Amino acid sequence: MEPTPTRARRIPVNVRDVVVQDPFWGPRQELLRTRTLAAQYDQLVATGRLGALALTWTPGSEEPTPHPFWESDIAKWLEAASYVLGTHPDAALEAKVDGVIAALAGAQGEDGYLNVYFTVVAPGQRFTDLRDAHELYSAGHLIEAGVAHHEATGRTTLLVVVTRLADLLCREFGPGGAHHGGYCGHEEVELALVRLYRVTGERRYLDLALTFVDARGTQPHYFELEHGRRGTPGFFGEHFPQREQRRREFEEYNQSHLPVREQTEVVGHAVRAMYLYSAMADLAAETGDDGLRAACERLWTHLTTRRMYVTGGIGDSRHNEGFTRDHALPNETAYAETCASIGLVFWASRMAGLTGRATYVDVLDRALHNGVIAGVSADGQRFFYENPLASDGTVERADWFDCACCPPNLARLEASLGSYIYATSPDAVAVDLYIGSTLTADVAGARIRLRQETAGPGADRVVLRVAAAAPATWSLLLRAPSWARSVSVGVNGGPPDGVAPVGADGYVRLRREWADGDTVEIRFEVDVRRVHASTLVAADAGRVALTHGPFVYCLEGIDLDVPAHAVVLGESTPQPRATPSGVVPDLAGPAWGETRGRADLDALYFTERAPRTEIAVTAVPYHSWNNRGRSTMAVWLREA
Amino acid sequence: MEPTPTRARRIPVNVRDVVVQDPFWGPRQELLRTRTLAAQYDQLVATGRLGALALTWTPGSEEPTPHPFWESDIAKWLEAASYVLGTHPDAALEAKVDGVIAALAGAQGEDGYLNVYFTVVAPGQRFTDLRDAHELYSAGHLIEAGVAHHEATGRTTLLVVVTRLADLLCREFGPGGAHHGGYCGHEEVELALVRLYRVTGERRYLDLALTFVDARGTQPHYFELEHGRRGTPGFFGEHFPQREQRRREFEEYNQSHLPVREQTEVVGHAVRAMYLYSAMADLAAETGDDGLRAACERLWTHLTTRRMYVTGGIGDSRHNEGFTRDHALPNETAYAETCASIGLVFWASRMAGLTGRATYVDVLDRALHNGVIAGVSADGQRFFYENPLASDGTVERADWFDCACCPPNLARLEASLGSYIYATSPDAVAVDLYIGSTLTADVAGARIRLRQETAGPGADRVVLRVAAAAPATWSLLLRAPSWARSVSVGVNGGPPDGVAPVGADGYVRLRREWADGDTVEIRFEVDVRRVHASTLVAADAGRVALTHGPFVYCLEGIDLDVPAHAVVLGESTPQPRATPSGVVPDLAGPAWGETRGRADLDALYFTERAPRTEIAVTAVPYHSWNNRGRSTMAVWLREA
Repeated sequence: MEPTPTRARRIPVNVRDVVVQDPFWGPRQELLRTRTLAAQYDQLVATGRLGALALTWTPGSEEPTPHPFWESDIAKWLEAASYVLGTHPDAALEAKVDGVIAALAGAQGEDGYLNVYFTVVAPGQRFTDLRDAHELYSAGHLIEAGVAHHEATGRTTLLVVVTRLADLLCREFGPGGAHHGGYCGHEEVELALVRLYRVTGERRYLDLALTFVDARGTQPHYFELEHGRRGTPGFFGEHFPQREQRRREFEEYNQSHLPVREQTEVVGHAVRAMYLYSAMADLAAETGDDGLRAACERLWTHLTTRRMYVTGGIGDSRHNEGFTRDHALPNETAYAETCASIGLVFWASRMAGLTGRATYVDVLDRALHNGVIAGVSADGQRFFYENPLASDGTVERADWFDCACCPPNLARLEASLGSYIYATSPDAVAVDLYIGSTLTADVAGARIRLRQETAGPGADRVVLRVAAAAPATWSLLLRAPSWARSVSVGVNGGPPDGVAPVGADGYVRLRREWADGDTVEIRFEVDVRRVHASTLVAADAGRVALTHGPFVYCLEGIDLDVPAHAVVLGESTPQPRATPSGVVPDLAGPAWGETRGRADLDALYFTERAPRTEIAVTAVPYHSWNNRGRSTMAVWLREA
Repeated sequence: MEPTPTRARRIPVNVRDVVVQDPFWGPRQELLRTRTLAAQYDQLVATGRLGALALTWTPGSEEPTPHPFWESDIAKWLEAASYVLGTHPDAALEAKVDGVIAALAGAQGEDGYLNVYFTVVAPGQRFTDLRDAHELYSAGHLIEAGVAHHEATGRTTLLVVVTRLADLLCREFGPGGAHHGGYCGHEEVELALVRLYRVTGERRYLDLALTFVDARGTQPHYFELEHGRRGTPGFFGEHFPQREQRRREFEEYNQSHLPVREQTEVVGHAVRAMYLYSAMADLAAETGDDGLRAACERLWTHLTTRRMYVTGGIGDSRHNEGFTRDHALPNETAYAETCASIGLVFWASRMAGLTGRATYVDVLDRALHNGVIAGVSADGQRFFYENPLASDGTVERADWFDCACCPPNLARLEASLGSYIYATSPDAVAVDLYIGSTLTADVAGARIRLRQETAGPGADRVVLRVAAAAPATWSLLLRAPSWARSVSVGVNGGPPDGVAPVGADGYVRLRREWADGDTVEIRFEVDVRRVHASTLVAADAGRVALTHGPFVYCLEGIDLDVPAHAVVLGESTPQPRATPSGVVPDLAGPAWGETRGRADLDALYFTERAPRTEIAVTAVPYHSWNNRGRSTMAVWLREA
């Protein structure tokens, strides 16, 4: 963990090496394993996605018409299932996985090509519509699935398939290839190729990722050249008849408005942006490319100081599923796609690895425990695509979506949670997230196990237990979370004493010879925070959000006699109150409620203010809203 | 003005019989006459709308392709120009009008049909797509123009043309006609036919209007029958591929979800709704149809207690250019189409005529002086289509629109303003709006002139002067506006003394023998009102709007050091301050401004509230915003 000026400071942790045993996350992963994966598999079957791999669709047939990005949904499910298999052997699940892999292998062409749409629906149109058709995006997800399956299970059945696909891409898009200079309108394949490079050691995959990233936004613009060659409006052309007139906007949509090294503002489709920046951070980490690193840091600053919801939601507009303007963070119409927050976790994790700085993990922690997991219901079977921060009571989760990116994306993130809890370097282990779990790692030449015990995210006490065959000297880095006022640390039974010093990187550093049986007790000073937004954010003016630990809270109408927007918080701040589940507390306390009763229905406008009466309010974690039916909701509360 | 149980209590005033001489409205009408009409005529030429009447378009020709509702833009301009000619003879304008009328006559078919699109672009498709193609809507505007031209100028050149068109409609859509049972997807022709009936006395036009109104929303649904016969998705089919799946929503869009007499909620496209309800009120007034009257009263209550902005803007969503849910009145994204407020003026005026109640005029007054005239810039040449009640500084008026309904609609309303100021019945004159003007009318058998002198809308003093050849006994009804705390009245030099009694109808009634030279002095107690919304309106929670007279006020960033949303109003209410123009006062006073300065740019979230400093604020009339460049704007101000 010593400073190196350019390359990554940390090595990603294999998901197989971390077992999650957390009061909050354990049951969620169990739900994922026992319910969500099965439900999502059924959706893949019911919607025809899996059946399409038989390549039996013909024009006019009864089968649903395959879509260019159906493989991406299959791949994300495979990725999630693979992670689960990595820590929870499950013969039935493994059989499903093997069946899907066999179907994918059967759908692959002689030359390695794998995309049902361009095989049976639009043969001959392969790689002619990179801007719209998600062809390389789907390939990227397949590659990620192959890497994940191999990393988690040690098997190569899917890795072989996706390596043949990746080799085809190298031939087609590498130097001298027929489509050299091209890149995908939806980024994803770039970061997938870096992952494939890491698992195979084959440099050509890294090179192709860099080729894709650096081709993006250069002139002459590839999408214009492609459009000219193709002579048709493209897969989404009918949806955007005005694309030619609003060229800059549509280039920003997929981050191709400028070469990536010249980009300074996060723009366009939020998921696309996150996947691109993740690949840029990966490439900077692998190659020591300071230009890409500097671009990432600029873009990060822009995102987090101008365009990010307090929940870690990003992309305020449904219009472009993305960003619009600085400080445009409307609450009721917030798009804040679940996948975009997941993408933010990806990028933040990579920035933390690249820089070794805890500030990135603070954002990851916030996004993960709010914007991401709000995407799934408590029963693991209903999903939010959009995650507004206020509701008039009409919003609720859905079973599935035509564009089904979010549910399997959530699944793969939750299933791979372990890889975000820790990070390692040759002589250090960093604890990034305070989530009950056990890490197995090689550090300073020794194999160790590190067990983390906690009452759940945001708990004020964490105990770490070291198990090691032999003593070794290494650094234990404990993230000082932004949600704790202070951190205290005690080693081997000594009670935490005083406030531990926090380094410039945001970590408490314990460097010593660690031996089997060593324990570390960490205490956090955690309180309910009243958070205020920049005065430039119109939507939050005069409002306050409540946070405790990594959780952002909200009011739900179901707990109130007035709509959530009619609550006014006074001087008194709601305080933690244990819940039946006993894991994440609610916040309870007095506030004011405004109502005129029946008069509010009989007229719209009055010359008198509505009377306020004291009411008891209970704020619940944002991620848990809409689990008790539809009602009004507000994260940002009015303040007296 | 004696009560009659069903039929209209009042007779519409011919626009020719009122000359506007008002410090506020006079210059606006002058601008319309000298600039706007010419600019809009130029747009009709430049966009090809007038040229299309030559019927020279052929497939592949260089000419712009005519659109099915181009005639409606021409017609609204003709209507506006006719009103102007009614009180301001202008040879050049008359020549333009005559030229356009001649072109329309030339484009009319032998059988009376008049629509360029269905003559040259889609011949043979006449009346096959009533739902989408605006064909009867365009016909309705032509009929209105013909009536207006005749009423204002006494000439019949256009009336002859539109009567032939209306007769064709009677043949096609009346009993036994080939398209009997059909009605238009955009209401308008119904109210136009009532106007044509009033000016011609031909009962068949009234009957056809009633036929259209009563066919609407009946089963089997005409638009479904038509769709089946046509077998194509229709003119807007490509825009709404999901229309079949969301049938109820798309039926609500054009108010065909239920028979009109069963409708209880204002739904769908706001302009369509207003034109329908206007026709229903007209028919109730002409026929004494209590069912239609009751439906109108129910719908009015719903609109004004649940779905109307404080500015008289209506239709909150861009999505359907219309209504969504009760109390959904977002400010920054308010659609509040200029045409919809104009439609509200039409409907309110008819409801006032039907019932004789001032409450309808209160809404008319509010819409007219805010939601309607915000639609045009101070120079009369730029237009708002949407009228948000808050802006982040990116909103501004445009020169023209592809769908150019609003500018000429504004023109015809402003040009016909005189007809809204007064209403008459056989032995009464009602003063509805306090706008400087002179009315010529026959009342109680005598011709009188009534001159109204005021410093402008919302002024606290109005003088009325009667000129009459002979004394006569009739009632003078003075509306007690909702914006005045009280009304005092003095006759013939006696100073207004005490508070005049206001009748249940909302008018002060002076019944006496009026003689030449009689004067009435009216004093209003006018103050700045702090208006609060129903607590069910989330967007306005904790906020206050300022009104004075009929005007709603707003803050503009150009007058502030902080964005408008960062202003907090304290106990002190801004007070009227004379402006250089001297007509409508600004409101000025102290308030609080919130800012952290540079820090608000460097971070998004803080644990401390932003500091407040006292600032001086100036609120300007809402209609006048964005006349000094783009900046932030807010109608609803935060309240300490």
